[in-house]
Amino acid sequence: MNKEFMQEAITMATDNIKSGKGGPFGAVVVKDNKIIARASNTVTSSNDPTAHAEINAIRMACLEIGSFQLDDCEIYSSCEPCPMCLGAVYWARPKAVYFAASKHDAESAGFDDSFIYDEIIKDPSSRKIPFIQMEIESALFPFEQWNKTELKTEY
Amino acid sequence: MNKEFMQEAITMATDNIKSGKGGPFGAVVVKDNKIIARASNTVTSSNDPTAHAEINAIRMACLEIGSFQLDDCEIYSSCEPCPMCLGAVYWARPKAVYFAASKHDAESAGFDDSFIYDEIIKDPSSRKIPFIQMEIESALFPFEQWNKTELKTEY
Repeated sequence: MNKEFMQEAITMATDNIKSGKGGPFGAVVVKDNKIIARASNTVTSSNDPTAHAEINAIRMACLEIGSFQLDDCEIYSSCEPCPMCLGAVYWARPKAVYFAASKHDAESAGFDDSFIYDEIIKDPSSRKIPFIQMEIESALFPFEQWNKTELKTEY
Repeated sequence: MNKEFMQEAITMATDNIKSGKGGPFGAVVVKDNKIIARASNTVTSSNDPTAHAEINAIRMACLEIGSFQLDDCEIYSSCEPCPMCLGAVYWARPKAVYFAASKHDAESAGFDDSFIYDEIIKDPSSRKIPFIQMEIESALFPFEQWNKTELKTEY
């Protein structure tokens, strides 16, 4: 846990406000005590609702190391990751995540992070955006084919 | 709710196994009863752990309509969205999400979706990947600056 890396994430967040690229969030990915990727939120400038600082930093770091896994890496984020970014962390599998502001601080600044944490534990069809399972005969066909093939790369 | 759109998502998922681009998942975004984006999972071929079918489809649909919001859209996914994709859905704000296979079906096929749903409700520092809040004086500085500026685009 290194304050210098966190300060870099916070500086990315603050500089992003001046540049007008997106929300006040920054993140860096660290490997072997060196920053290998640094990013800010670019949702509004790139018309991409998934372009949070952590997602951008994870994508950049993976390109940098040529892998879809962030083995032995740490992520420093200016704010506690939202559920989308938490999920991305689990798929990227770094060692740890450090954050400065909390999801409640994000909520006070007008961001939905806390609301989404509340929604995720609800029954899918009762969420504000309903998630509805459709009965369809072919539902399991992709997984059946996946289990049969030997050509797959697991992740 | 339209079975034709779901079948298209499932076909994207199945075709993806043959092409070797990634996992057995597909998604389409529908607006005004037309598919405006269709995507499959490209995690392993693009070295991008965030490149799930739903994330790819949301990003494509947003580029297509030139907005970071999927107003009046519906998402059809071959499988129940993982927490990352659920979060992305909330940030994109479509009307509804329809899915075929469940997160338990995904788990049976070797995917971590269900595990991540279990992790998200834990105390952050007790998760398998620990999420640790760092005390740092500048933690709230980005939000303070965000609240002061008039140049921002809210999302």
